[in-house]
Amino acid sequence: MPTDIVVDAMGSEKAPESEIRGAILACRQLDVRVQLVGPEETLAPALKACLRGQTLPIEIVHASEWISMDDKAAQAVRNKRDSSMRVGLKRVREGKAAGFFTAGNTGAAMATAKMVLGMLSGVHRPALATILPTVTGFPSLLLDVGANVDSDPENLVQFAIMGHMYAQNVLQVTNPRVGLLSIGEEDSKGNSLTRDTLPLMRQLPINFIGNVEGRDLFNADCDVAVCDGFVGNVALKTVEGAAKLFSVMLRQSLKSTVTSQVGALLSRRAFAEFKKSLDYSEYGGAPLLGVQGVCIVGHGSSNERAIMNGIRVAAEFAQAEVNSGIEAVVRAGATTPVS
Amino acid sequence: MPTDIVVDAMGSEKAPESEIRGAILACRQLDVRVQLVGPEETLAPALKACLRGQTLPIEIVHASEWISMDDKAAQAVRNKRDSSMRVGLKRVREGKAAGFFTAGNTGAAMATAKMVLGMLSGVHRPALATILPTVTGFPSLLLDVGANVDSDPENLVQFAIMGHMYAQNVLQVTNPRVGLLSIGEEDSKGNSLTRDTLPLMRQLPINFIGNVEGRDLFNADCDVAVCDGFVGNVALKTVEGAAKLFSVMLRQSLKSTVTSQVGALLSRRAFAEFKKSLDYSEYGGAPLLGVQGVCIVGHGSSNERAIMNGIRVAAEFAQAEVNSGIEAVVRAGATTPVS
Repeated sequence: MPTDIVVDAMGSEKAPESEIRGAILACRQLDVRVQLVGPEETLAPALKACLRGQTLPIEIVHASEWISMDDKAAQAVRNKRDSSMRVGLKRVREGKAAGFFTAGNTGAAMATAKMVLGMLSGVHRPALATILPTVTGFPSLLLDVGANVDSDPENLVQFAIMGHMYAQNVLQVTNPRVGLLSIGEEDSKGNSLTRDTLPLMRQLPINFIGNVEGRDLFNADCDVAVCDGFVGNVALKTVEGAAKLFSVMLRQSLKSTVTSQVGALLSRRAFAEFKKSLDYSEYGGAPLLGVQGVCIVGHGSSNERAIMNGIRVAAEFAQAEVNSGIEAVVRAGATTPVS
Repeated sequence: MPTDIVVDAMGSEKAPESEIRGAILACRQLDVRVQLVGPEETLAPALKACLRGQTLPIEIVHASEWISMDDKAAQAVRNKRDSSMRVGLKRVREGKAAGFFTAGNTGAAMATAKMVLGMLSGVHRPALATILPTVTGFPSLLLDVGANVDSDPENLVQFAIMGHMYAQNVLQVTNPRVGLLSIGEEDSKGNSLTRDTLPLMRQLPINFIGNVEGRDLFNADCDVAVCDGFVGNVALKTVEGAAKLFSVMLRQSLKSTVTSQVGALLSRRAFAEFKKSLDYSEYGGAPLLGVQGVCIVGHGSSNERAIMNGIRVAAEFAQAEVNSGIEAVVRAGATTPVS
C-alpha cells in the first residue's frame, strides 16, 4: 500500500520545477503517491511536460497562494489563507495524506503546521530536528534547531523524548543515546538552563547520557543531542558557514601548485563525493516534531534529489510509531510533575 | 626594545617541551624576551638541552606547582597557590612582564587571571575571544566563547566594546564591523537576551551592524561577533567537531578509488596546507579580554609553533592600546545608563 505524501510545490528556490521532478523521482523509486499543492494553472502544464507521457501516481491539489522565502512568517501565515503550505497541511489533518513536505520558508512552515495540525497531546512546544553526519556514517540528530527561542527545562525534556522516539523509530537506532548539549561533560558545566534540565532528564525512561559537547555531534558518541532552539540554530548555521569555508579553502589549496592541479583533476570524483556527504539535503530535511502529524522541512536550495529524499523521510516518519510513542511517554511523565 | 612575555611552561599536553621549544622559536624570530614559569629543577636541564649552547633571552621563573587539564578549575586555583599560572600572572601584575601565555586548563587560566590581574575599571565580566578564519583570509573574532555562562545585555555590550578594541588595535581592522550573533538578520529574530541587547548596542560609538548569523563568522561579512559564552562555546566546539569530520571524510573519499589514490598522492601538499589553515593554533590562541593585563590562552594540543604564535599574539596585544581604550569607552558609556 503506497504512502500518500503532500508536497508544497511552491517552496524551494527553483519551485515548482524541483518539486515536480522530485515527485516524479519519488514515485519511480519509492512506494509513495504524491499530491503536489500549488496553483493548478502553473502546475498542470509543468507536470505534463516533465512526465512526457508517463503515468505516475501524482495528483495536483489547487492552492491559489504561496509563501515566499522573503515573506515574514507570522504575517504570511495570517494573510495567505489559501497558501500551498496551509492547503497541504490541511490534507494531512483531514487524513487525505500521511505526511507533508516543504522546502519553503521554515518559519512559516512551522507556524502553519502548529496551527493546522495542532500539538500532540501533552506536548507544549514543537522542535525542529536536523540530521547530522558522523565519522561512522550513521547520522546523529540535533534538536531544537530553531522552532523556539527561550525554552525552559520542561521543553528540553520533551525535546529529549521526541528525539529519542524519532531516532529509535525512524533512524532505526536501538536504545539511542540522548545527550544534553552543553559546554563540558561534567554535570556542573553549563548554563542555568542546562543545569536545571539535567536532573529532570535523568528521570526519563530513555538512555540519557548526560551533557555532551558540540564535537560529540559528529564523532558518533551520542545519537540525539538536545538544546534550546537559539543555541541549536546558531550551531547549525555556524557549521554551514564552516563547511562552505572548508570547500573554498580546499579548492584554493588544490589549485596552488602545478602538481596539486594534476592531483585535483585526478581526485575530482573523490572531492564531489566528499561535498555530497557534507550536503545534508541528502538526508531529506528536518522533521518538525511535536505536532499532530508528519511535517518535514527541507532546504530552500533543494534540488529534485533532495525533494525525493524529503518525500522518502516523510513516508518513513508516517509509517513509524513516533507520535503515539511521544504522547505515551509524555503522558507517563505527566503523572510525576517535571518542573 | 624587546617585549617581556611570561609563558606557563607546564600548560600544554606536551609540557614543558612544547613551551621550551616555542620560547626558543619566539626569541629567534620575534623581538621578545621570555620568562618560562615552572619547577626550576625540571625546566633548567630541559632548557639547557634544547638551547644546545645558544644564548637567547629566556629566563626561568620558579613555581613549585602546576594545574593540569584534569584539575577542577575552581579548586585548583584555590589550592595550588604556587602554580605556574599564578606565579606567571603575578609577574604581569607586578610589571615584570607585559603579557602572559598559557596552553593549559582554560577554566583555571581565566579564573586565575581574573583573581590575580583584576578587572579593567568598569568592566563587569571578562570574555574569551577566539580568532576564526574567513574566506578572504582575514580573520574574524568571536566572543565570548566560554568565560561566562548566563550573560546579561550589559555584559554583551561590554563584550562588543572589547571585541571592537581588540580587532581595531591588534588585528588592525579599520572600523571593525561588530555584529550580535543571532538566528536571523532582522531585529525581531533572536532570543530575549539578543532582543534586549540590540537597542543598547546601537547606542555604542562603534560600527555596530546588527544581528549576524553563524555563517557570517566565516564569510567575512563581519569582523567581530558577540554572543553569550554558552552559545559561543557550543558554536566553537561544534565547528571543531565538524572540521575533524570533514578531514576524516575527505581522506576516505580520496582513498576510495585507484584514480583518486593517485590524485591524493599528488595533492598531498595541498591537503597539508588546507589542514594548516583550519588549525587555528596558527592564530596563536584566544585573548582573555576585560582583565587588567594581557592573558592569552592556547589549545592544550599546542606544538612549539603554536606556542610561538601565542607569544607573538601576547606581545602584539601588550603593545597595542587595547585595555586603556576599553576603559575609556566603558567610562563614557557609563555616564548614560546602559541597562
